[in-house]
Amino acid sequence: MADKDRSTLMDKIVALCKRRGFIFQDSEIYGGQNGFWDYGPLGTELKRNVRNAWWEDMVGRHDPLDPLPGAPSAYQMVGVETSIIMHPQVWKVSGHYDLFCDKMVDCKESKGRYRLDHTKGRWVEGKIADKSTDTVGPVKAYFVTALVEESVLDETLTKKALTLFGMKNKEADKLQWKTEAVSLATIPVNQYVDVVAPDATKPGTFTEPRDFNLMMKTIIGALGTEDNAAFLRPETAQGIFVNFKNVMDSTRVKLPVGICQIGKSFRNEITPRNFTFRSREFEQMEIEFFCKPDESPAWYQYWRDRRFAWYTSLGIGPKHLRLRDHDKDELSHYSCGTADIEYQFPFLADGEYGELEGVAHRGDFDLRSHMEGKLKNENGQLVVEKGPDGQPKWRGSGKDLTYFDDQTRERFLPHVIEPSAGADRGTLAFICEAYHEDEAPDDKGQMQTRVVMKFHPRLAPIKAAVFPLVKKDGQPEKAKEIYRALMAAGIAVTYDEQAAIGKRYRRQDEIGTPWCITVDNDTLSGDTVTLRDRDTLEQIRLPVSEVVREIASRLRKS
Amino acid sequence: MADKDRSTLMDKIVALCKRRGFIFQDSEIYGGQNGFWDYGPLGTELKRNVRNAWWEDMVGRHDPLDPLPGAPSAYQMVGVETSIIMHPQVWKVSGHYDLFCDKMVDCKESKGRYRLDHTKGRWVEGKIADKSTDTVGPVKAYFVTALVEESVLDETLTKKALTLFGMKNKEADKLQWKTEAVSLATIPVNQYVDVVAPDATKPGTFTEPRDFNLMMKTIIGALGTEDNAAFLRPETAQGIFVNFKNVMDSTRVKLPVGICQIGKSFRNEITPRNFTFRSREFEQMEIEFFCKPDESPAWYQYWRDRRFAWYTSLGIGPKHLRLRDHDKDELSHYSCGTADIEYQFPFLADGEYGELEGVAHRGDFDLRSHMEGKLKNENGQLVVEKGPDGQPKWRGSGKDLTYFDDQTRERFLPHVIEPSAGADRGTLAFICEAYHEDEAPDDKGQMQTRVVMKFHPRLAPIKAAVFPLVKKDGQPEKAKEIYRALMAAGIAVTYDEQAAIGKRYRRQDEIGTPWCITVDNDTLSGDTVTLRDRDTLEQIRLPVSEVVREIASRLRKS
Repeated sequence: MADKDRSTLMDKIVALCKRRGFIFQDSEIYGGQNGFWDYGPLGTELKRNVRNAWWEDMVGRHDPLDPLPGAPSAYQMVGVETSIIMHPQVWKVSGHYDLFCDKMVDCKESKGRYRLDHTKGRWVEGKIADKSTDTVGPVKAYFVTALVEESVLDETLTKKALTLFGMKNKEADKLQWKTEAVSLATIPVNQYVDVVAPDATKPGTFTEPRDFNLMMKTIIGALGTEDNAAFLRPETAQGIFVNFKNVMDSTRVKLPVGICQIGKSFRNEITPRNFTFRSREFEQMEIEFFCKPDESPAWYQYWRDRRFAWYTSLGIGPKHLRLRDHDKDELSHYSCGTADIEYQFPFLADGEYGELEGVAHRGDFDLRSHMEGKLKNENGQLVVEKGPDGQPKWRGSGKDLTYFDDQTRERFLPHVIEPSAGADRGTLAFICEAYHEDEAPDDKGQMQTRVVMKFHPRLAPIKAAVFPLVKKDGQPEKAKEIYRALMAAGIAVTYDEQAAIGKRYRRQDEIGTPWCITVDNDTLSGDTVTLRDRDTLEQIRLPVSEVVREIASRLRKS
Repeated sequence: MADKDRSTLMDKIVALCKRRGFIFQDSEIYGGQNGFWDYGPLGTELKRNVRNAWWEDMVGRHDPLDPLPGAPSAYQMVGVETSIIMHPQVWKVSGHYDLFCDKMVDCKESKGRYRLDHTKGRWVEGKIADKSTDTVGPVKAYFVTALVEESVLDETLTKKALTLFGMKNKEADKLQWKTEAVSLATIPVNQYVDVVAPDATKPGTFTEPRDFNLMMKTIIGALGTEDNAAFLRPETAQGIFVNFKNVMDSTRVKLPVGICQIGKSFRNEITPRNFTFRSREFEQMEIEFFCKPDESPAWYQYWRDRRFAWYTSLGIGPKHLRLRDHDKDELSHYSCGTADIEYQFPFLADGEYGELEGVAHRGDFDLRSHMEGKLKNENGQLVVEKGPDGQPKWRGSGKDLTYFDDQTRERFLPHVIEPSAGADRGTLAFICEAYHEDEAPDDKGQMQTRVVMKFHPRLAPIKAAVFPLVKKDGQPEKAKEIYRALMAAGIAVTYDEQAAIGKRYRRQDEIGTPWCITVDNDTLSGDTVTLRDRDTLEQIRLPVSEVVREIASRLRKS
């Protein structure tokens, strides 16, 4: 699909999300907040279903007595729910306090602040005439930044260069623009004098780049001093690591064991974008899977494949999904493997993928850090070693986080496999994947474009809709009976008697209801209804007494 | 029960919560964080069950076609999930920015900060001899604050008075202590010169009381200035109000309708305490129920009673629960009724109750505020009126939040009933209510004290446990078959073959598993098992083929 069509498709999806109550801009009546989103009634049910599917499949359906297909051995899974605001030392020891940063530059004149790798611009070079000696001076180079992320060379930019560098038209003729827009990140700091910031009236106003920490800070307690600073967690994972010992001590679980958590995390993204994909407030579904070190490569392979399969089992087409293994040089020094599960979101250019989930082999890095503490080494990495003074920079808890294997009588620090999924990203992928347009007949038999959300039945916010064909002849009463029977069976169901039947089908198609049940004249005479399938449009007749069983059975088999 | 026994009981409950993995102190390996708690594996399942029970009962099981018993009419319920960090204007218009405060005093000397209503102390009065005229001077009064919340008159306090006010022993004899400890809140500011702060070495170091806002602040975006300050929501309710129009526009729901939300909220409590009861991070389950103004009193009564009944339906004994209607003078000026649902937590003195949920009639106050804006009136209340300059202090959204009733052709601002429940408080009440000690025979037939958590089966983290009586004769294989059949039916089940059978029963009793199924010799010969009830200790024999059906049926009927 061409990028333009992809962009149109994304616009349609965003519009449908608002129109049918899946996703709204947060605080929209006050103009909205960049990077924050609210879920409406249908979006809330959809996201609940995503979370519940993950919890049921990951936590609930693991049999510690028998290995699942593909698993190196049987294993256990348990859940935790830990605080968003944790002890600040957690983030020092985890490395987030020192290293969870983006490089930023400030403009001293306009007070604008820009993410270094988003600031793009163009070089212009020219030989400058020196009037006093009537010679041509040395080649000078200038860099003009366009608005963040824009890199179009246009007349405005050319004029800006002329004005800001005090050049005359004659000189301008000798200018040679570089054809490629480049990032400020590629420019040595001592050349910043030749750089013009967006909205600045003179060159050289950019500061040197500096680290901007992405954790959101707040103050706890009444004193209100920096000593009481705390951070909103940027990931749920650390809540699992610091509770590892508590979980092992309070349960009878043994290795291998996964500890799972669903919860909100916060990152102060400089440029949130792409609908809910890069938000400042988002929800994660994370597993930290603890195992013996020598078994960890096999478990890494298992989780990498199992998590990929989870998305396809819920309807993501394998052709839109890829499992991208990180190159050796992309890996952290402690990791023997990381793979991203990526989806081809329509807001990306054709052939580009966005991360849904990372599956990482983390070795014993996290548990060892929380036990022993961390030090920044000469390469700026945080490593678990003592410094020259014999002390780590950030002291760990000092608690023994090792595991004693009572079969082998060995004590060791478990290795960890971390499948870390985004609940909002997953939900967005399920929405994008579900969106289809096809042709279906309207009430007059004319073929019309139909928008249909082909959600997997487990994820669909509403599973079934019940309609009386007409609002008379006892049909509404019969339809309501069926509606109530489905509701009593715990099936999410809706009832609709407004408008022509075709219009009612379209309403349900657009929100992804898999099955519609229609009561008509034959229902009253023959006690049967029609059952229409959202995707195939196939309609079958079914005895009224079979409706609940049929829907429940289709749901189970889905 | 005596207060001492109640306190012992609470200690036992807290210890069990940690020992069996219900609730841990947050960041415990780093010494913990006051006011933050983590849920362990069983606590997570318990709290999930509480949330799911609320969602199923409040959102899922409302039939918009038929009135429920006691309801004035049929109604609809839908859910939303809104951001924790909302637009700052939301909190200005809601009143939280101005009024969601505790009064605090600072000590200029010790830099201590105290919540005014927690600072207690004692007056001492004495006639002071004036040596120069050899007369007895006027009566002087002094106030000595003890440590926050302590109010015991002891020798230390007396000595402190003598030292700090520079009194001699002779003078001290004339001192008369007031018998009642009083709060600083009752003392006029111009008498603060006579007040000694805790840890201060001289009197008069307290500042005047000032407002301390309980909202936690953070900074959004890269600029890091106060202009970018945002707040962690202190309640989920406002997320519903600002989305009212979006929900009505994107769904086909009509009034009366409840919009429901479960989510975390944050309050910077000065003195968090009583286990998870008063935490800085907590979860709410809130309903904003929108209805016609003239029907609102009837709906208020309905929700007040229905929410009370929800707790008793899940096992809270009515004798530990009360519904306390606020007095007329406790009500906000816009409210025609508020009732608290309160539970007799064991950490409270006998006869005292703690709030589980508030059910409030809020009139059109919130919607009108978000439409028109707010002004602080002469009594310090935020009211929806324009000031002398014709403008509200905080401008509302200006969006039309009225509702058009297409039956009556009337346009109006709906009135709102707000049942606002605490998920952590509810969970804690269910834990406290479940805790029982009784006598049960051990493996040798001796009666022993048994700790049993009598959770309602819907809330119990694990519904059934399967044991082989002995680890041989094919019993484990048979037991595992039953275990797997229960798991396949979606029932939370555990398997245990370790230790004597009595000990295994006790393990399950202590975490509240309602039913234990034991495979014994008769299972292999007669294909039956024993099914033991947690509360009655009754054991029945049951065909193996009936186990899943029986457990599912007991769960359904519970």
